[in-house]
Amino acid sequence: MSNQQEVNMYDALRKYVSEYSGAPVTDEEFELIKVAFTSRKIRKKQYFLQAGDVCKYIAFIVKGALRQYSVDDKGLEHIIFFGIENWWVSDRESFTMLTPSRFNIDAIEDCELLVATSEQMQHLVSNSPAFRKTIALLDQRHSIATQKRIHASISMTAEDRFLDLLQNNPTFLQRFPQNMIASYLGISPETLSRIRKKALQK
Amino acid sequence: MSNQQEVNMYDALRKYVSEYSGAPVTDEEFELIKVAFTSRKIRKKQYFLQAGDVCKYIAFIVKGALRQYSVDDKGLEHIIFFGIENWWVSDRESFTMLTPSRFNIDAIEDCELLVATSEQMQHLVSNSPAFRKTIALLDQRHSIATQKRIHASISMTAEDRFLDLLQNNPTFLQRFPQNMIASYLGISPETLSRIRKKALQK
Repeated sequence: MSNQQEVNMYDALRKYVSEYSGAPVTDEEFELIKVAFTSRKIRKKQYFLQAGDVCKYIAFIVKGALRQYSVDDKGLEHIIFFGIENWWVSDRESFTMLTPSRFNIDAIEDCELLVATSEQMQHLVSNSPAFRKTIALLDQRHSIATQKRIHASISMTAEDRFLDLLQNNPTFLQRFPQNMIASYLGISPETLSRIRKKALQK
Repeated sequence: MSNQQEVNMYDALRKYVSEYSGAPVTDEEFELIKVAFTSRKIRKKQYFLQAGDVCKYIAFIVKGALRQYSVDDKGLEHIIFFGIENWWVSDRESFTMLTPSRFNIDAIEDCELLVATSEQMQHLVSNSPAFRKTIALLDQRHSIATQKRIHASISMTAEDRFLDLLQNNPTFLQRFPQNMIASYLGISPETLSRIRKKALQK
């Protein structure tokens, strides 16, 4: 990776933290961010995490798309998470408890990531007010989003869950193949195909 | 409520914070906790929160059982959360964003609660290290638990979700009626009844 590319990656994170926290990132804080995060490229189909390993890193996605999924006894994949630009990805349980993960995380497109360990994140949170505010807001939004997803899973029909995704994350439908979208919604590809046709006719 | 009962309620929270954070609660911190939380009793079937209202309080459950649920257009209830002793209850989205809630929270048994506003919680987190550690751990466990629940909802059969509940929260099955357990699992009471019989025969 050229130096210029690396510079752009860190600038992307600086911009994100500044916009998200609503607080300017001072040069001093930016230096801390640059020390904490390492740039990493992974190509399409490569793994960021493999089930059984400890998830040592969290990644800020500068470019690309990833998914987090488990594989059951029958070899079926269950996608719990999609991540694209300006999202964060890690297996939170494994990352915070340092236990082996049950999930895989792999790249659906070529990715440019900025990665940090739990210790590095904690150090940043302790020393950068803008970063601390960003993480607090992120945790809050994550908590709200997961509550919504649980509510959707127990209360909404497959069709309504699809329409919800279409409304809130339309990009997912362009960037991830149909079989993965079906897995994310917890339905079969056949059901998704039927629902899509019906929705597009409306 | 007698003074002695109130004392016992605060002692329950002190014990909880001390055990959860692994740090002793100093007398000074305990005074802060007592100032932040107000004791409140609600009787079975009374509401802690009604849909459409802003969830101004979070409650620590000293005694009793509550549920959080939405009601859809057809009048069907969808239970997203059960809380018993030593659990916390609030609608996180409404509580943190101060937006009207889509959820109801009501008492399934007579309850003794300690309640605090978002401001009071933030003040405590800023001023009590033991309380701050407790909340950080709580957020972490909450995040892990919700990830597990989402994973279960997209990857597990209704039977496996029931067995999972039986293993991890067996008390729920004794304290909440069958129709509520079914709603929590996102299945019909008839399906739950069939699954229960099958599971008990094993």
